[in-house]
Amino acid sequence: MVAIKVNEDLQKERGKGNFNLEELTNLLDGGAEKTEQRRELVEFFVKDPDFKDKIPVEYLSYTDRYREAVRKSCLMFYKIKDYQEKKKSGSSVELYQALLGGMLGSAVIKDGTPFALHYVMFLPTLMGQGTVEQQAYWIGKAWNCQILGTYAQTELGHGTYIRGLETTSHYDPDNEEFILHSPTLTSYKWWPGGLGHSANYAIVLAQLHTKGECHGIHAFIVQLRDEETHMPLPGIKIGEIGCKLGMNGVNQGYLGFDKVRVPRQNMLMKNAKVLKDGTYVKSPSDKLTYGTMIFVRVAVVRGIAATYLSKAVTIATRYSCVRRQSEIRPGEGEPIIIEYRTQQYKLFPWIAASIAMNIASTWIWDMYNSVTSELEQGDLDRLPELHAISCVLKALCTSDAARGIEECRKATGGHGYMTCSAFPAAYGMTTAAETYEGENTVLYLQTSRYLMKAWHNVQNGQSMSPTVKYLERHSERKLPWTNDLPSLVSAYYQTATGLIRDVTEKVDKRVAKGHIPEDVWNYYSNMLVLAAEAHGRAFLVQRFCDILSNKEISPSLRNVLGALCELYAVYWLLKNLGHFLVHSNIRVPDVESIMDWQDSLLQEIRPNAVSLVDAFDIADEILDSPLGAWDGNVYERLFNEAQRSPLNSMPVDESFEKYLKPFLRSNL
Amino acid sequence: MVAIKVNEDLQKERGKGNFNLEELTNLLDGGAEKTEQRRELVEFFVKDPDFKDKIPVEYLSYTDRYREAVRKSCLMFYKIKDYQEKKKSGSSVELYQALLGGMLGSAVIKDGTPFALHYVMFLPTLMGQGTVEQQAYWIGKAWNCQILGTYAQTELGHGTYIRGLETTSHYDPDNEEFILHSPTLTSYKWWPGGLGHSANYAIVLAQLHTKGECHGIHAFIVQLRDEETHMPLPGIKIGEIGCKLGMNGVNQGYLGFDKVRVPRQNMLMKNAKVLKDGTYVKSPSDKLTYGTMIFVRVAVVRGIAATYLSKAVTIATRYSCVRRQSEIRPGEGEPIIIEYRTQQYKLFPWIAASIAMNIASTWIWDMYNSVTSELEQGDLDRLPELHAISCVLKALCTSDAARGIEECRKATGGHGYMTCSAFPAAYGMTTAAETYEGENTVLYLQTSRYLMKAWHNVQNGQSMSPTVKYLERHSERKLPWTNDLPSLVSAYYQTATGLIRDVTEKVDKRVAKGHIPEDVWNYYSNMLVLAAEAHGRAFLVQRFCDILSNKEISPSLRNVLGALCELYAVYWLLKNLGHFLVHSNIRVPDVESIMDWQDSLLQEIRPNAVSLVDAFDIADEILDSPLGAWDGNVYERLFNEAQRSPLNSMPVDESFEKYLKPFLRSNL
Repeated sequence: MVAIKVNEDLQKERGKGNFNLEELTNLLDGGAEKTEQRRELVEFFVKDPDFKDKIPVEYLSYTDRYREAVRKSCLMFYKIKDYQEKKKSGSSVELYQALLGGMLGSAVIKDGTPFALHYVMFLPTLMGQGTVEQQAYWIGKAWNCQILGTYAQTELGHGTYIRGLETTSHYDPDNEEFILHSPTLTSYKWWPGGLGHSANYAIVLAQLHTKGECHGIHAFIVQLRDEETHMPLPGIKIGEIGCKLGMNGVNQGYLGFDKVRVPRQNMLMKNAKVLKDGTYVKSPSDKLTYGTMIFVRVAVVRGIAATYLSKAVTIATRYSCVRRQSEIRPGEGEPIIIEYRTQQYKLFPWIAASIAMNIASTWIWDMYNSVTSELEQGDLDRLPELHAISCVLKALCTSDAARGIEECRKATGGHGYMTCSAFPAAYGMTTAAETYEGENTVLYLQTSRYLMKAWHNVQNGQSMSPTVKYLERHSERKLPWTNDLPSLVSAYYQTATGLIRDVTEKVDKRVAKGHIPEDVWNYYSNMLVLAAEAHGRAFLVQRFCDILSNKEISPSLRNVLGALCELYAVYWLLKNLGHFLVHSNIRVPDVESIMDWQDSLLQEIRPNAVSLVDAFDIADEILDSPLGAWDGNVYERLFNEAQRSPLNSMPVDESFEKYLKPFLRSNL
Repeated sequence: MVAIKVNEDLQKERGKGNFNLEELTNLLDGGAEKTEQRRELVEFFVKDPDFKDKIPVEYLSYTDRYREAVRKSCLMFYKIKDYQEKKKSGSSVELYQALLGGMLGSAVIKDGTPFALHYVMFLPTLMGQGTVEQQAYWIGKAWNCQILGTYAQTELGHGTYIRGLETTSHYDPDNEEFILHSPTLTSYKWWPGGLGHSANYAIVLAQLHTKGECHGIHAFIVQLRDEETHMPLPGIKIGEIGCKLGMNGVNQGYLGFDKVRVPRQNMLMKNAKVLKDGTYVKSPSDKLTYGTMIFVRVAVVRGIAATYLSKAVTIATRYSCVRRQSEIRPGEGEPIIIEYRTQQYKLFPWIAASIAMNIASTWIWDMYNSVTSELEQGDLDRLPELHAISCVLKALCTSDAARGIEECRKATGGHGYMTCSAFPAAYGMTTAAETYEGENTVLYLQTSRYLMKAWHNVQNGQSMSPTVKYLERHSERKLPWTNDLPSLVSAYYQTATGLIRDVTEKVDKRVAKGHIPEDVWNYYSNMLVLAAEAHGRAFLVQRFCDILSNKEISPSLRNVLGALCELYAVYWLLKNLGHFLVHSNIRVPDVESIMDWQDSLLQEIRPNAVSLVDAFDIADEILDSPLGAWDGNVYERLFNEAQRSPLNSMPVDESFEKYLKPFLRSNL
């Protein structure tokens, strides 16, 4: 093996870091043991040459891209079995999550997989909403992949608003069957992953009708295709929805029903039930089905937002230590572009944001697990709080990440525009998450609803849940402002409090005047979104801040993280400066020193930039970008990557004889 | 022909408009005659069935996409000839511009064309920098497309900083030839459109060496490929650079030279010259070559930024009047989503921005033309001002447009994520323009440099150029603030003045303390960017405002434009509220009423929303989006579009037998 020569500039940067990289890696992974497990998975899955593309998928036709996604998905699941046998361990949810949602998945199956919803939605819904009998029957088949499922909720004309779904399921007590039907074109299921040509079963959400009454949306297991021939079953109209901005390996599909019958047992009946005679038995709580939705939102924060942002910022930071451009001091030659303060400003806040999202996602994952076990005891108390914080975090983190990825891409100039840079796919995956699993604006408004209630509760002296407890004490502003982290945290709380208070009072005042509450809500909805954003941002700042008081962290790492935490808070403060001037104890004369603080933080973080992204510990095979490889051989790698374009296999393309030559000879 | 049924909700919206659409269309086109000419072109080119894709290009392999781009590009130029014969008019630059840069080009050749640089850079450079003899020889061949050219400046390792280019051109007086050479991998030309497999000639920028001295970058005409066989000539190493985020029909290429000789006459010598014996004769002014660069930047504001943004907002606005979702008032059913205030906030500022960009681009186009004719008289006075304003406008408009297109896309939910929605290609084309022809941050800093000088000039009592004249009078703030347009304009000027003054003073102070000026410049560069942005935004607001005093505009249109102008100014004020609170006469207690003003403007514009985008007058063939078609038959069109996916031609894809069936049978 030939020793790889590392770019000298990049190597020099690696000498500048002043903290223990492994310590940060372990912190981000959740412990040294988790780091080791992750590395083992990377070694086993990602470095397998079977997953390497001979021709990068972007050069293939759409149909061939799909076939390649199916091939690789099968391969991945065979390998999962090998891995389990090797490790002598059973299937674990974490393993599938790691492979489908996070770093590993993004490396192995870059453009998504048609199998994802089988694990992310089909199986969890069976587990969460099926009776014991249903679980016994279906989960075994699904777990061993004898059947491949998807989850069909969204319709061509209906998304976020679940009550608006049109697909019907009428109970026929004579045959003890449900009849699924698509009454309109807009009622066609549209978007489910794997639905196009891959899955043969689906969990279908439909309006349940029995005994002449509609009981709203319920879930039904429906077979879509013959298990032997894969032909669509009678009454099933099915296909894929076409090319998208990203995720073109996912095989999203459409599905229409022409009076398709399924046995009564195919309704998931853990909560609500339909008895043989058609009697409807209500669910003890309509909140019980929230679980899966919250689970997916929590998973998105880590598996999509934090993952792709950390990839993007790793690529852009390393590239910025190799790329040279222009001059700072005349006659001193072209510096590496990370020396430019504008470049630091484009990158370092996203290094900080990657870490902030990682920390917050760990926190909310813990909360999710404890609330879920409380739920199983019948305790629903903390569900609204979990719902509120998961909504705003999903919205804020996915939109930050999408924006951050694009800023990182643009910070790498033209080369970032190349598909091989890995930015376009990262953006495609991340911006999709701004829409799916609750469109972000809708999610902000869900959180606002909770915050308005919380503000009313404060006024009534009620005891507050932890994530909104700050509303009790941050209405007043203590002058003067000082440039330190506790003041930043307090300013975030003051600003969130002010925005929540103001909009609540505006809404209340208008309603008191006799306006229809829903109209008032709509009228002020842009302010409500601002209030929710401020709440979410304060949450992220607080969680980041909390980590600094963890006594197990070494002083050197604490210093680095402290600077990043301050940068995170100062950056977003200055981006939203107006609201802080209106609502916090920051005054106009303080602004200059806060702007200077930001500049000095960029300077402070500068020597650790490469070490920080190195500590994210993302293998080259996962980054999969000539711009971001560990060795910094950017130009050689870009050139070699271009040679993989099939157009470059011949010096003259056949289009010359066919079109171009006659054209040039035509003497136009 | 079957009468098309128009969606009823959309039809109803069309009844709500209260201005004459044709009047606005004419205003945006620059007069009724121009509207007519444009429509004639659309009729002739865009509605030609030869340009319709049987299979949308996104389903093709990369190689086939290129071939299709070549086929269509040839077709387009044959049609241009037909058109000229029909109209009995000669070639006109405007015609090529319309077809290559604007609406028409985006419709006919969606993913860009390998011929674009031939017209946009190769021909203009010959015209601008060639001697009369050179023009006589080359322009005829190029104009009739006997040769196909490109413009090779950017290198693998060098972009914006032209002085850093590495390609050399050594003069050999014995043979009266230049020897072009690529001394390193990073010196390979990289990115020029059409260079990969299409062009057979290029204008190459290289470091000129003669008589042992380097004279910097000069332009040389180089033949790349044999005219008969299209084989690369000896010493020419050429290929394409690979797949990108967008523009995959452009065939961007790379190019290396192994001591390639061209005759002395191939150096473009209108300005600088090399005599037979190798004597170098300097150009009378180094500013003379600025022309083409400024031309392209000005063209980008209209042809890319305004064009794609207006397409995006048309699609999103119409879709928002068809799509129904959720409830505002309980029990009243799902309203069209444009009823949501959050949706109005996502769309209407971009309707206003499209118009603002259109107005500003007309203004700067006029300035460009008059400065160019002054240049020909040897008068360079206004060149720095034109340069400064074209830099910031290009940066601001491309970044606004890219952001606006993405906001419009996300405002259409999941369906906007489909390739057929037309948003992804619009974003790809627009975000590319954030980087090419001067990376945006670099451009902002060019403008800042001019602004700092301007501030010094104000202090010295010198007379000011029109676009910075406001610096003379907007340092003081007159209280109290009132909610009206003149106050807005003034607040923009105050804020720009404050930011320019503050950063200039900071820089001066540090330099006075003995710091190296270039280091200080770098230290404060993020503030310098803010100052340039504020200057550009004030310019856009002022130009929009000016149009309202045009006496030929009817009162009803003036009302509509007035509301849009106010919304534009209020929206960006609130987005940058902090700076306004620091630098303008707006005080914290004024903020509430400005936020309310924004809400009431959204409400005021609401009834005209569809009429406004209808008045943009973009034909369905140009929009090319099921979501935005004039008839609003969104769902039928989306469904039909999905049927065009080749994967949907068979109920079961061959990957089932090959991969999926064995997998499902493997009992994993």
